[in-house]
Amino acid sequence: MANEEEKDKVITPRAEDYSQWYNDIVKRAGLAENSAVRGCMVIKPTGFAIWENMKAQLDKMFKETGHVNAYFPIFIPKSFLSKEASHVEGFAKECAVVTHYRLKNDPNGTGVIVDPEAKLEEELIVRPTSETIIWNTYKDWIQSYRDLPLLINQWANVVRWEMRTRMFLRTAEFLWQEGHTAHATKAEAIAEAKKMQDVYAQFAEEYMAMPVIKGAKSPSERFAGADDTLTIEALMQDGKALQAGTSHFLGQNFAKAFDVKYLDNNNKQQYVWATSWGVSTRLIGGLIMTHSDDKGLVLPPKLAPLQVVIVPVPKANGVITEVAEKIMGELKAKGISYKYDTDKKKRPGFKYAEYELQGVPVRLSIGKRDLEKNVVEIARRDTGEVNSVDIEGVADYIENLLTEIQNNLFQKALDFRTEHTSEVNNFEEFKTVLQEKGGFISAHWDGTEETEDKIKELTKATIRCIPNDAVEEEGVCVFSGKPSNMRVLFAKAY
Amino acid sequence: MANEEEKDKVITPRAEDYSQWYNDIVKRAGLAENSAVRGCMVIKPTGFAIWENMKAQLDKMFKETGHVNAYFPIFIPKSFLSKEASHVEGFAKECAVVTHYRLKNDPNGTGVIVDPEAKLEEELIVRPTSETIIWNTYKDWIQSYRDLPLLINQWANVVRWEMRTRMFLRTAEFLWQEGHTAHATKAEAIAEAKKMQDVYAQFAEEYMAMPVIKGAKSPSERFAGADDTLTIEALMQDGKALQAGTSHFLGQNFAKAFDVKYLDNNNKQQYVWATSWGVSTRLIGGLIMTHSDDKGLVLPPKLAPLQVVIVPVPKANGVITEVAEKIMGELKAKGISYKYDTDKKKRPGFKYAEYELQGVPVRLSIGKRDLEKNVVEIARRDTGEVNSVDIEGVADYIENLLTEIQNNLFQKALDFRTEHTSEVNNFEEFKTVLQEKGGFISAHWDGTEETEDKIKELTKATIRCIPNDAVEEEGVCVFSGKPSNMRVLFAKAY
Repeated sequence: MANEEEKDKVITPRAEDYSQWYNDIVKRAGLAENSAVRGCMVIKPTGFAIWENMKAQLDKMFKETGHVNAYFPIFIPKSFLSKEASHVEGFAKECAVVTHYRLKNDPNGTGVIVDPEAKLEEELIVRPTSETIIWNTYKDWIQSYRDLPLLINQWANVVRWEMRTRMFLRTAEFLWQEGHTAHATKAEAIAEAKKMQDVYAQFAEEYMAMPVIKGAKSPSERFAGADDTLTIEALMQDGKALQAGTSHFLGQNFAKAFDVKYLDNNNKQQYVWATSWGVSTRLIGGLIMTHSDDKGLVLPPKLAPLQVVIVPVPKANGVITEVAEKIMGELKAKGISYKYDTDKKKRPGFKYAEYELQGVPVRLSIGKRDLEKNVVEIARRDTGEVNSVDIEGVADYIENLLTEIQNNLFQKALDFRTEHTSEVNNFEEFKTVLQEKGGFISAHWDGTEETEDKIKELTKATIRCIPNDAVEEEGVCVFSGKPSNMRVLFAKAY
Repeated sequence: MANEEEKDKVITPRAEDYSQWYNDIVKRAGLAENSAVRGCMVIKPTGFAIWENMKAQLDKMFKETGHVNAYFPIFIPKSFLSKEASHVEGFAKECAVVTHYRLKNDPNGTGVIVDPEAKLEEELIVRPTSETIIWNTYKDWIQSYRDLPLLINQWANVVRWEMRTRMFLRTAEFLWQEGHTAHATKAEAIAEAKKMQDVYAQFAEEYMAMPVIKGAKSPSERFAGADDTLTIEALMQDGKALQAGTSHFLGQNFAKAFDVKYLDNNNKQQYVWATSWGVSTRLIGGLIMTHSDDKGLVLPPKLAPLQVVIVPVPKANGVITEVAEKIMGELKAKGISYKYDTDKKKRPGFKYAEYELQGVPVRLSIGKRDLEKNVVEIARRDTGEVNSVDIEGVADYIENLLTEIQNNLFQKALDFRTEHTSEVNNFEEFKTVLQEKGGFISAHWDGTEETEDKIKELTKATIRCIPNDAVEEEGVCVFSGKPSNMRVLFAKAY
């Protein structure tokens, strides 16, 4: 029993089993767990608090760029899905289908059965994404150029019946936001898709401290129904890439499928241009895998639900609490979140390990002997560094330290990515680098789906993106030897 | 065409057709509309902005009372529903059932069909409420008294397949929050249920400006699976009651159904005590029907997405804009939301009507002639009163006015309720008052379900609640003549 409990507390080192390390962190830091429903997770309070912080910041950024929120039905009539050919092809295989609307008592015993008489005339799909139901609605909202642009976002749950699931990274149900915009011109829609890619990149780098590459997907990796898919790609510590957010230029595909036209200022009917863009709870998986270590979760201060924990050593007493309260008052004035842990049943060392595991960025210990010198002890989670700091001015010190931790985490992740981005010029090198070092591989590609498929089949690496900042460079395809004028980024991916 | 457009803009007066008036407001103020999916609505940006304000305030109040948010799966295995007998009986008839997880191309033509080979072993129910999936999860979270209380809330969408739907008031899918708490003792769980009833009442009265009666439901009106259901009941302008929020003491029913026990501090296994409580987008329906008038929506300032609109008369120019900007700066400093409408294509009169329709609490007009006297014109939406106000100090004036409007709306609704609450002492009087005046009827009831059913059958009135502040009073049941020691509140209800 004791052994089992101990085992339950150990985090498998990354070097031993990266995948198990990830699961251990998710479990031990109390972020999420698998539910009784296949592929669906329970997001626990600590994990959900991170999502709330992400959501608040993203929502602010969306509103600052002119978007408003709305809410569309969770169900999509089956016939709607079929209206855009490539869209239905992309999603048909992972649809949860509602066929009945009533249960009844089982005449043969206890329990309930589906009432065969309550069969829907048309089946409903639990939304895997909402383009179809939304464009069917936009049809009534858009008549003239005066109704455009329409800049709407929705925070929602969606369901994609994935066969292999992984907490946060790939789950049957997940939480996300989906922006759906309508524009009068192609140029405006393209600009919107780019703008939202920028917003996502800014959020990832400034708040998650997760560096990302902005680029475009190759045609075969585009969203089902898009003319162009822009992406932000991050690199995880195991050298695999994570698609962290996508922004799609949908052309007039959905406008044509749902017959959405507007009267332009020359009194002519025109099809509307569209974008859609989304990020999801998958970002939490990216956050974990970018910063965390073998001791547990590491959180960037800007998204940490708890930024500072104050631990009395060995336990709280009048003097210590007085100092703690003074410091808490100062932290509160600065808008820094804190907790004073006075639990007498746990030793300081145990608390240190727990908060380390939970990724609290700063730990402040107040001990009797330190107080004689008018100092407290401050430990930072990212480097483990411990310092004695004068009580006078400690809140300023912490404020600066939080910024420093935020910046350090970003720089560390950026350095890792730089070290793990390799230019290769032939297929042998490609395979060797992929196997021995992983990370992003910058290589020439002949632009054909055939080559892309072949490379994927042989190495499991895919084209993550054609980077926005790629420069023209004459070369030959790393696989086919055919001419190419630009390097693209390959990687194995989540 | 012109006529049709005109007709589209008219709001049916309440006196003519109350139900149509409600639909007109929802539609014309751009709050919501019916979707292509039966019974599901689209919540439009203006309607959703009200919900965001409600949600932000409620979430704050939940957190201040010690609750944290989490997220549980949208799907509930069919067998879970059956575990609590009265729960399944209450919800079985309105369940959306997922039976398959894949579509495939129709071999007989275009389009897609449900893939018969992708049938789920066990059907999944789209959650109508989450007690069962949550208590199945709590089983693993609760071992000892140290794990209690567990105070968790979830913001989510739920689906109840209602046959007769009405935007906001009763829809197949709706947005809500559901709190689910676990406690070591019965007393603590009862106290929690009461506390959340108080939180709901405080929110309704202080933020929605909607007076409510706090009380308990009669046994037949309890939530399916509850030992006691506490409610807040509001009165709408047509004299019908609206159940605006409920808080349930669930006893040990779900703990027993899902075998959730804890080790108490005497080392004995005990079943856990539970509560659940929820409010939904139905509140928006209540908000509309409490305050709005024949000119359109009326919103209490604390929940209005836009509190002040500034209209230049006849249109914006340098001087007017300069004054507007000064005022906007002052409003911003006070945290008051505003919009300066410089649209030159619309006349001031048209704008006035539009903002009136949308329920903006305060309209400020800036005209050339007024400026010569250093005044602006301020109109309040609730009373229609218009005043000239010195530009100097106008932000203070508006700040006070918003408070006054908030208080006035509450007082007006309270007066209406007082006027429409009648004590009756025999069944003839009961029927007459119900038919001629409506509202709450305070009457003696013998406490039997039989009488309750009979009254409902004959009059369509139900027991809304046994008020918390009911006083002991000897009397006889208004229907059966049997002895009763307390009056309860009857009304027709939404």
